[in-house]
Amino acid sequence: MSTNDSALRDGLGGDGPKGRGLTAEAIARLVHGEVIGDGGVRLTGVAPLDRASAHDLTFLAHERYAPLLSSSGAGAVLISAELEAAANEGDGAQYDGCRIVVERPYDAMLQAIPVLYPPSPPATGVHPTAIIGAGASLGNAVSIGAYAVVEDGAVLGDGVHVGTHSTVGRGVRVGEGSWLGDSVTLYPGAEVGRRVRLHAGVRVASDGFGYVQKDGRHEKIPHVGRCILEDDVEVGANSTLDRGSVDDTVIGAGTKIDNLVHVAHNVRIGRLCLIMAQVGIAGSVHIGDGCILAGQVGVSGHHTIGAGARLAAQAGVFGDIPEGETWSGYPARPHREALRAHAAFFKLAGVMRRMERLLARAEEGE
Amino acid sequence: MSTNDSALRDGLGGDGPKGRGLTAEAIARLVHGEVIGDGGVRLTGVAPLDRASAHDLTFLAHERYAPLLSSSGAGAVLISAELEAAANEGDGAQYDGCRIVVERPYDAMLQAIPVLYPPSPPATGVHPTAIIGAGASLGNAVSIGAYAVVEDGAVLGDGVHVGTHSTVGRGVRVGEGSWLGDSVTLYPGAEVGRRVRLHAGVRVASDGFGYVQKDGRHEKIPHVGRCILEDDVEVGANSTLDRGSVDDTVIGAGTKIDNLVHVAHNVRIGRLCLIMAQVGIAGSVHIGDGCILAGQVGVSGHHTIGAGARLAAQAGVFGDIPEGETWSGYPARPHREALRAHAAFFKLAGVMRRMERLLARAEEGE
Amino acid sequence: MSTNDSALRDGLGGDGPKGRGLTAEAIARLVHGEVIGDGGVRLTGVAPLDRASAHDLTFLAHERYAPLLSSSGAGAVLISAELEAAANEGDGAQYDGCRIVVERPYDAMLQAIPVLYPPSPPATGVHPTAIIGAGASLGNAVSIGAYAVVEDGAVLGDGVHVGTHSTVGRGVRVGEGSWLGDSVTLYPGAEVGRRVRLHAGVRVASDGFGYVQKDGRHEKIPHVGRCILEDDVEVGANSTLDRGSVDDTVIGAGTKIDNLVHVAHNVRIGRLCLIMAQVGIAGSVHIGDGCILAGQVGVSGHHTIGAGARLAAQAGVFGDIPEGETWSGYPARPHREALRAHAAFFKLAGVMRRMERLLARAEEGE
Repeated sequence: MSTNDSALRDGLGGDGPKGRGLTAEAIARLVHGEVIGDGGVRLTGVAPLDRASAHDLTFLAHERYAPLLSSSGAGAVLISAELEAAANEGDGAQYDGCRIVVERPYDAMLQAIPVLYPPSPPATGVHPTAIIGAGASLGNAVSIGAYAVVEDGAVLGDGVHVGTHSTVGRGVRVGEGSWLGDSVTLYPGAEVGRRVRLHAGVRVASDGFGYVQKDGRHEKIPHVGRCILEDDVEVGANSTLDRGSVDDTVIGAGTKIDNLVHVAHNVRIGRLCLIMAQVGIAGSVHIGDGCILAGQVGVSGHHTIGAGARLAAQAGVFGDIPEGETWSGYPARPHREALRAHAAFFKLAGVMRRMERLLARAEEGE
Repeated sequence: MSTNDSALRDGLGGDGPKGRGLTAEAIARLVHGEVIGDGGVRLTGVAPLDRASAHDLTFLAHERYAPLLSSSGAGAVLISAELEAAANEGDGAQYDGCRIVVERPYDAMLQAIPVLYPPSPPATGVHPTAIIGAGASLGNAVSIGAYAVVEDGAVLGDGVHVGTHSTVGRGVRVGEGSWLGDSVTLYPGAEVGRRVRLHAGVRVASDGFGYVQKDGRHEKIPHVGRCILEDDVEVGANSTLDRGSVDDTVIGAGTKIDNLVHVAHNVRIGRLCLIMAQVGIAGSVHIGDGCILAGQVGVSGHHTIGAGARLAAQAGVFGDIPEGETWSGYPARPHREALRAHAAFFKLAGVMRRMERLLARAEEGE
Repeated sequence: MSTNDSALRDGLGGDGPKGRGLTAEAIARLVHGEVIGDGGVRLTGVAPLDRASAHDLTFLAHERYAPLLSSSGAGAVLISAELEAAANEGDGAQYDGCRIVVERPYDAMLQAIPVLYPPSPPATGVHPTAIIGAGASLGNAVSIGAYAVVEDGAVLGDGVHVGTHSTVGRGVRVGEGSWLGDSVTLYPGAEVGRRVRLHAGVRVASDGFGYVQKDGRHEKIPHVGRCILEDDVEVGANSTLDRGSVDDTVIGAGTKIDNLVHVAHNVRIGRLCLIMAQVGIAGSVHIGDGCILAGQVGVSGHHTIGAGARLAAQAGVFGDIPEGETWSGYPARPHREALRAHAAFFKLAGVMRRMERLLARAEEGE
């Protein structure tokens, strides 16, 4: 994405199309595009090609979807010069809405959305039902939702939002500009940086799963480490991030975590990683910067994932992963090796019978 | 199940056995069964054979469990004619409670439960601690629990229940007869049909996991699409359903989703599907009508699952699945092929040594 | 761990280092250790070797970490006699803080933590915003957090803690000394023993996922069974435990369940099991005492896991598991067999080409 539009950086997740909208011409100016057709059409929302209506902006980013254009009801389409030219070649029905020709239609769409869906200014202020504990400190322009609880000694930076039914535990610090959705729990031991986003139901600094055997019972190990979320971390709905036992759990700056992810005690995740839905990371795993863990990956305890490594969906990691490599499968192996093994695997049954017959004959002849 | 008893359709999930109960004769009339023994025994609850007591109704639906009958303390048992006859053949101790002979004991049990456990009439009305936003519209006979929040402009149809600590976001519409459990979050962008059931901790219309690379950082993609739950959808506890980015996320009518399931942005699930626990469905996947995804299945992004397809537990899907087929394994393959491959796989180690010796010899001889 | 220190059993999860702390000598007395160096150093917290500072206690439990000792800034280290002796052998820089020599440094650390981090005395009493239903019964010294809801007829034993935004459903009983974190939901049908710990977002006794086909639709099966958590059970954040349909769901005494685990209806888990993060247990599975299920294991419905069995991470169980055995892989097999099969699997591609060539030649010659 190449844009210098600060609106995009600020304006995330508007609530729905607004009444006024913009003309196609105004959109074209915003995205440095060229208008073909009626630039005066007013656009109030966005929609995909096949479901856009007369006041929607749409986009065509790939040849594959070109057949949908002619029948699209969109008021205007963001389109590349190549696809625009191609669309005019056929004999059949042609799209007769406004075209906004740009180099990268999808990037242009991302620029247009926050302008068409300006984020509602957050209702700054503390809801009368929110409970603010003794000695808690609130920055400027914080917004705290209904029935939220900010416990004693918690510190919220400027512009922090605490959603409905969320709890900021005793003494927890939340950096400026961070946004907590609804029903989020920050237990004591959590430390949250700046511009962090935590979606609904995220639990931070819950006790890790640690026991020692004693007289045949599982004796709980105390957890007094922290769970540190550095700047610009985002965590998806209902994910759980445990606090450390003696050591800390740390999520590096700019790392993004999807829904229903489990991060155990003492885990360290580097900067700028992408951790996709339902990944499970066991205790004391260390993950370098810039790693990508696809959905449902599991990493067993105490292993190291080198910087820049990638793990394919559902990979089961039972050892260290070297820097920069892509691994997949169960147990995880270098991706090329895993692909070769799986290809052979599915040919195996077919040759097994031949093989056994041959072996029997050959061994007879020994 | 063959029943026209409307009580079963309405009366789901009673809270526990009620004092008065019914006689075995009344149950027999309800399920069109024939009483053998004392039809006057009063039944106040249900329990399995091995734990039922004198006021419990139980059932024997399979030969396998027949040995449990003779020692069961149940007041009455729903039983087929065949198993009832067989139970009288032995010489040993025999069950001396009331028998209600029916064609399908399990179906009869399902008919009897809602009568023995009549659902408490929902405490209609708005709890005094519930917060109802400006311009929110409440249908007739809604019930809204303690500390629930219905934000500005939300619209609740007749008979809607909003559980304790749940939030209905700004402008969200919930169709008539829908039931939201406790601590449910409907963010703006959610649209909920009629007779939908959302269990505790479900999050609907949270932002999807979408970023573009910019200057080495992960730049968030705005999410302005909807998350639409059509009529008669049910979603299990702590599942997360993301809103679309430009497009919508849609769950088709009558589809049932289990606990801890992840549905990413722009996913479309058809009608009458069963999505079992901990399934993860990545972005823009399309699933046809009547599909079954067993527990912990993962589907990677942008693939299509044809109508009526079935995926076995833990299957890892990295491509399209044809209509009506059953696939399993990692990476998922047609189930028969996967079974053959796995059978060969576990024989493999045993022949590998023989094979390598043979290969060495044969290659020497070349 | 060998300790008779009752503080450890009671004092779990303190909130952070306290001001006063203890001297190294006092710690040494507590853990029956011998001081070498300045026993007067005051310690206020704990930290790992590489991040400890002058008022932190640290520990060296394994040779592997010995190189970190010389540069550690810790005020004192718990260390074995062997490692202490070894540390003095080199020529380079040496750790000059206080050493507390003990037989088992890690066990000693576990003894020291609850003394350095005494748990805040729970703020007993009922928060003024908590709602206590008609006929609910509260034991002595209960603590009920802000906006918690205890519904009609619920019974809380002595010393029970109910966290912020948690709900104890109608008629639910919670045994003495149990601790419910924030945003926990106990639906009617839940029964909670003594000293049970439920972390944030746990849902107990939600309806199971059960439907029968009727006229092509999925008709919901009523759920009237219970979900019983016996004494000393612990359940991690955002896990879900469904109630039974006719039968009960039961979690045996002393069993520990990690985060994001799914336990379906009618499941029975024995005593003293360890169920790790993101495990999924389908309906009517029976698990014996003392089993260990590692992360992301899936068990399909109606199977039995024998007492003392162990399942490796991500295992997919499609049959019964014998007592005391360790199984792994997909589909799960005895661990040794699975290891052999996987080793062969990754050699397979390499020999497949040779094999096919050989087969072709051999079959030609037939």
